[in-house]
Amino acid sequence: MSLALIGTRMNVSPKRLIDPGPSPEQLEAMFSSAAAAPDHGQLTPWRFMIVPPAKRGLLAEVFALALIDRDPGATLVQIEAAREKAYRAPMLMLAVARLVSDQEPEIPNVERIVSLGCAMQNLLLTAHAMGFGSGLTSGQAMCSERMRGLFRLGADEHAVCFVNIGTVTKIKPPRVRPTADQFVTSL
Amino acid sequence: MSLALIGTRMNVSPKRLIDPGPSPEQLEAMFSSAAAAPDHGQLTPWRFMIVPPAKRGLLAEVFALALIDRDPGATLVQIEAAREKAYRAPMLMLAVARLVSDQEPEIPNVERIVSLGCAMQNLLLTAHAMGFGSGLTSGQAMCSERMRGLFRLGADEHAVCFVNIGTVTKIKPPRVRPTADQFVTSL
Repeated sequence: MSLALIGTRMNVSPKRLIDPGPSPEQLEAMFSSAAAAPDHGQLTPWRFMIVPPAKRGLLAEVFALALIDRDPGATLVQIEAAREKAYRAPMLMLAVARLVSDQEPEIPNVERIVSLGCAMQNLLLTAHAMGFGSGLTSGQAMCSERMRGLFRLGADEHAVCFVNIGTVTKIKPPRVRPTADQFVTSL
Repeated sequence: MSLALIGTRMNVSPKRLIDPGPSPEQLEAMFSSAAAAPDHGQLTPWRFMIVPPAKRGLLAEVFALALIDRDPGATLVQIEAAREKAYRAPMLMLAVARLVSDQEPEIPNVERIVSLGCAMQNLLLTAHAMGFGSGLTSGQAMCSERMRGLFRLGADEHAVCFVNIGTVTKIKPPRVRPTADQFVTSL
């Protein structure tokens, strides 16, 4: 593996992700990479739900109504901006974590969410290796009951973020990354 | 990047990780990869603490005493087994997540822990690319006050797991990974 690939992968805003998105074969390879994530107890405590083009309108409505739920005084411009976010990036999927429940008490939540992070990074690196850009998006709508209802999340599931993938229109300069002395110490 | 590298990385038990471990330069490259993780809000909400050989004894004591705290009837054999875990793998480090606090209310915990997962996967893939094996370990001692005290964790910090890195003595057959149809659906 070219280690430069890990170092050059950066977040791309969905606004700058356009067609073409990944082919079904490319997408399959991304999910195959995700499946190689560390997974204590082999629970696969996460899943991805794709929002295909024909269903973007449903998500747009959830984004708009979740905004109005939070802020009944939202302006039409704000509501339209919320709606518009559902139409960005040719490939859009929701990343969902399955948390501890009575039915599945093993393995604490932090380890489940770390496993999801590992799966996502494998997926993002694979997309990057194929020449695609990707970005993660979230926001207050993630916790709304409307979002949970649209994706029919189980009581033990948590909507973590959206994964956006596509062709990059405009590359921005990379951001400065922390250096090891900022996050590594020795006992 | 050879995508096969992502697919072939697997967990190796610390029992099967021996010298040599990574050189300082190799370790630096691993941390540089970790630094490329997605990080909403650029908080670097995680850190790693290396346990050098000279300090393994302190960790062994914490493992043993944390066991006795949980189970005052632990046998000497069990206590010795707990102690012994501190001496495995030439490179041993604790992965720590920094959670939401009054001082840092932005970005929910799931996104912080996902960022740590991404950082860890970048680090593990880099170790794998260099020919090292790696494994993640955790257990009930992670939450003990003795562990928190040894690593001087802040009130907002959570000890997630240990990262073990070294040379693999014996390769085991890879485990069966989930297939995409088991964790991907479409809206």
